[in-house]
Amino acid sequence: MSAGPGPSTEAGWRRSALGPSRARIVDGFLAERQRVNRERTIPHGFDQLRRSGTLDNLRLAAGADGRYRAHADSAGATFPFLDSDVYKWLEAVGWELGRAPDPTLAAAADEAIGLVAAAQRPDGYLNSYVQVVRGGSPHTDLAWGHEFYCVGHLIQAAVAWHRALGDDRLLAVAVGAADRIDKEFGATGRDGVDGHPGIEMALVELTRVTGDGRYLALAARMLDLRGRGLLGEGRFGAAYWQDHQPVRQAATVAGHAVRQLYLDCGAVEVAVELGDQDLLAAVRRRWDDLARTRTYLTGGMGSRHRDESFGDPYELPPDRAYAETCASIAGVMLAWRLLLATGEAGYADAIERALYNGVLSGVSLSGTRFFYVNPLQRRTGRAWEPPGRGGRAPWYPCACCPPNLMRTLSSLERYLATSDHTGVQLHQYATADLHAPVPGGAVRLAVRTGYPWHGRVTVEVVETPEHPWTLSLRVPGWCRSATLSGPGEARPRPADAGRYAELSGRWKAGEVAVLDLELPVRVTEPDPRVDAVRGCVAVERGPLVYCLESADLPPGSRLEDLRWDPRREPAPVPRPDLGEAVVGITVPVVRRPAGGPATAGGADLTAGAVPYFAWANRGAEAMRVWIPR
Amino acid sequence: MSAGPGPSTEAGWRRSALGPSRARIVDGFLAERQRVNRERTIPHGFDQLRRSGTLDNLRLAAGADGRYRAHADSAGATFPFLDSDVYKWLEAVGWELGRAPDPTLAAAADEAIGLVAAAQRPDGYLNSYVQVVRGGSPHTDLAWGHEFYCVGHLIQAAVAWHRALGDDRLLAVAVGAADRIDKEFGATGRDGVDGHPGIEMALVELTRVTGDGRYLALAARMLDLRGRGLLGEGRFGAAYWQDHQPVRQAATVAGHAVRQLYLDCGAVEVAVELGDQDLLAAVRRRWDDLARTRTYLTGGMGSRHRDESFGDPYELPPDRAYAETCASIAGVMLAWRLLLATGEAGYADAIERALYNGVLSGVSLSGTRFFYVNPLQRRTGRAWEPPGRGGRAPWYPCACCPPNLMRTLSSLERYLATSDHTGVQLHQYATADLHAPVPGGAVRLAVRTGYPWHGRVTVEVVETPEHPWTLSLRVPGWCRSATLSGPGEARPRPADAGRYAELSGRWKAGEVAVLDLELPVRVTEPDPRVDAVRGCVAVERGPLVYCLESADLPPGSRLEDLRWDPRREPAPVPRPDLGEAVVGITVPVVRRPAGGPATAGGADLTAGAVPYFAWANRGAEAMRVWIPR
Repeated sequence: MSAGPGPSTEAGWRRSALGPSRARIVDGFLAERQRVNRERTIPHGFDQLRRSGTLDNLRLAAGADGRYRAHADSAGATFPFLDSDVYKWLEAVGWELGRAPDPTLAAAADEAIGLVAAAQRPDGYLNSYVQVVRGGSPHTDLAWGHEFYCVGHLIQAAVAWHRALGDDRLLAVAVGAADRIDKEFGATGRDGVDGHPGIEMALVELTRVTGDGRYLALAARMLDLRGRGLLGEGRFGAAYWQDHQPVRQAATVAGHAVRQLYLDCGAVEVAVELGDQDLLAAVRRRWDDLARTRTYLTGGMGSRHRDESFGDPYELPPDRAYAETCASIAGVMLAWRLLLATGEAGYADAIERALYNGVLSGVSLSGTRFFYVNPLQRRTGRAWEPPGRGGRAPWYPCACCPPNLMRTLSSLERYLATSDHTGVQLHQYATADLHAPVPGGAVRLAVRTGYPWHGRVTVEVVETPEHPWTLSLRVPGWCRSATLSGPGEARPRPADAGRYAELSGRWKAGEVAVLDLELPVRVTEPDPRVDAVRGCVAVERGPLVYCLESADLPPGSRLEDLRWDPRREPAPVPRPDLGEAVVGITVPVVRRPAGGPATAGGADLTAGAVPYFAWANRGAEAMRVWIPR
Repeated sequence: MSAGPGPSTEAGWRRSALGPSRARIVDGFLAERQRVNRERTIPHGFDQLRRSGTLDNLRLAAGADGRYRAHADSAGATFPFLDSDVYKWLEAVGWELGRAPDPTLAAAADEAIGLVAAAQRPDGYLNSYVQVVRGGSPHTDLAWGHEFYCVGHLIQAAVAWHRALGDDRLLAVAVGAADRIDKEFGATGRDGVDGHPGIEMALVELTRVTGDGRYLALAARMLDLRGRGLLGEGRFGAAYWQDHQPVRQAATVAGHAVRQLYLDCGAVEVAVELGDQDLLAAVRRRWDDLARTRTYLTGGMGSRHRDESFGDPYELPPDRAYAETCASIAGVMLAWRLLLATGEAGYADAIERALYNGVLSGVSLSGTRFFYVNPLQRRTGRAWEPPGRGGRAPWYPCACCPPNLMRTLSSLERYLATSDHTGVQLHQYATADLHAPVPGGAVRLAVRTGYPWHGRVTVEVVETPEHPWTLSLRVPGWCRSATLSGPGEARPRPADAGRYAELSGRWKAGEVAVLDLELPVRVTEPDPRVDAVRGCVAVERGPLVYCLESADLPPGSRLEDLRWDPRREPAPVPRPDLGEAVVGITVPVVRRPAGGPATAGGADLTAGAVPYFAWANRGAEAMRVWIPR
């Protein structure tokens, strides 16, 4: 256990995270997404937190007069977790300010931090909903109250400010809030778990940052208390909030997707920190089943709308995909922890798939419009919607996804690389500068690439110790041909898809390794057990899943009338209209209206497929990933 | 307008309903379902109304002490509409006692009627939830309160007791309750509509029974007030409770399926009684769209779980089909009204499809276990469920479906036949005795048939006036070959599928008409626009949709590994294990496990398909209607 930058091999992790300031994305695709996030999305978020009353709720908790805005619907359901949106936004700002100063952002964050600190009670308790609406009695509704959940996000924000800036204002608040919980629910206290997991992983981080093992112990205790019926059945059954089976026993994922994935993030953290192999094995077993049977091509997870839950195995409807943006993010978070715990490339593949598809689809190219739900199909004709509805929204009454996107994009660097006793591992490819400990010292690497549009990745060794070390580069699972070349003394070991290619030896500053990944257009058949897309194919290129959208169809066509034409080949095509360097795909189609003649229209019809993450930026009309043959 | 047995041609309806006692099912398939309903389901229902506290709730409203049981879940949602379950049960008992006495049933009904009467306030108001839980202030939450909805079911029960038994105890209560509503919401009163339609059709019936036109006017007013934003957006949007567009304007069905269908039942009643052709045309337009784009093969309607709503056009997932039993029943109710209004055979086809499939699937063969939701596919592997869950249930916290099934099965006779100025029309085939007005007098007919297992229907004319009249017999839309023969003087006019074959002329007592419908096994292709079942076929015979169920697979097979074998033919086979005369179908299949060899297992594998209504009577394991090719 250390007060270091995050999970490290000292504590039994196979790979060490680099921590902030040791990785920086400097150009290219992900840099642009980060720029938009910093310049557009995060300021927009502050504006929305003001307008929605979420910031004012904290002001009320601090003693101001006014009406609490819990966004109750007319059925009486209210949202008691809105504080967490402030914390997620603050986490994002912490990472941003650590990368570069911004007086406007800093002032906004100072206001929010001041409100958070002022709202906290002297005993450490902090939850504006309970303090203002529920008469200030803590922990009377653990099932629906989200009190621990909110503190979990508070801790994560505090950790970001501590690590990125050495600013511990939030950490003081978070420690007070965590201590208040530990006092009531710790080793000798009440048995209690939150209806929405999430605090567990945060508590482990709090132990890392403070060196105080109580928080890790509390996280472990909260994991052990699951599956004992503490929360009851509720509206959706005990699986909804992960109280249906003990964490070590549940064989498959179940219930509300984000709850399950956040819980398993905490379980990995606790398992590795405490050396609990059974617990880690339980999470890996669930992940394997999830990845094989319940994950969309886009990395989306949790197919059901009703209770935001995982469905049956292979129940992956494209039209009614729920695939909440937060669930894709949670999938990335869990895969990242499993990658650190095991070093296996498959987890980095999963991060890539989700990140480039089901996560990025959650925010518009402009950065200020969001999707909560990420279907893989939208029809031309649809169920009745109020005018203006159905597209991306500037905010949501339950606004969990937008600030979750903000903090994810602000801390994308963490996913690029790790280090261990052999050297440095590159997991995700972006033009980036890296600084990593290796045997005998530390290296500085300059990674340059046009990824995901181009498959070449060059890694220049800028500084290196004399001691030999190994550079490992992930060959993505989708890649059928990869070549790796290195400088004189480095011995390359190529790899199959889904493993790491390696260059080992002594390095000199200025030497360059080159990885070439072939990026042909791939025509993907679905697993035959996925009933909902039988008889369809999808188009992929590199890490990107593509989709057809109304705007790119042959004139006069409805998306529902087009079929894949297997006699011709799809081909890449530049799409500067969607962004610099963007590659689209030209898809051969035939027009076959239902009830009409077998084939109509010209023999050479094509439709333009765009990356899934870029859909619904030209209106939100019909779209589909899976194309009928 | 008359105080007669129901809609009649005097008021502009094309066909007249026969009314109770004029039709009686005496043997065969539907008679057996009615017997089980009377002997098992209805007594079971009374027992459940007692155990669940629903009857006691009325006792509390009448002044007794105790705790109201609104079946609140831990999220705070409560069910304010439980009184309606008592009313639906009473409606069923009314029809049953009209058919034949039963002292035990009569005593139970007397107890329930006594409780209902005692619970009513002196001002006519009656709703146990409001009286006991909400402090007795009526109509403060029209959106969610279901107060008019409950009175609607009270009226329907009162009408049943009036028509079937001439017993007006409930009618006195219903008139008081309706008058209380009319006083507050009538012509010169408040504008108000219920979040759950249903009272509208009942009010029209109350005018028929009492001759008092105020109720019809109130129903018309309630229809006119829809789409003006009186209910707000709520959790699911204004379409959920039919307040999104005016009833005359909405082009398609939308929102909660049962709410839409009940509303349109009321709209047809009002339209025909008031001669409002625009209103009738609006309902027909919505029905046409619904039948074409949003109805399952089983007649199920409303595909979405989240808000029990209609989905997009052609959004008909078999696994996540919601297809609530009540929605299938509501579809029958609406098709029946449209059949009376127009005389078109397609509506009788729709009644048949829903009744024999998506309605009857809602109750077990034993009569005491129910399905609320009626999917067309259930997988071998499923999302986690608590032990013992997932099959049919003896009752539900929201118990709308079981008593809705009871009243539907108790009044099945109404759907068999109608009369008009030309003669008698037979719409549904069952062994039944009919007594119908015709030109020049009345006829008695003895219909004899082994339907739906056999396709022959004989109609013996037992009594007839001398005046010529026409016997019309529906040729179902699914029937590719039908022959009609009659006695000497009757001139037969055969018909295509989906129309009425006719025999016109003078009749003599003892003469027999014979309709022969061919019943081959049909292999049905889905509409290519239904994405979810692309590449599959279904098996049908007569009015019945079939399904494969785990219990009938080749040894060692999983349902997911079987594919339709197009080289061989399906064939009918007796299934006495599922009931007298039941016909199953032998389906040729090949075994093709995902990831396994292209074809495995013997060349002559077959699986046994059973009628969909009979599934889940031998456990609720895997099932599917649509079979991959």
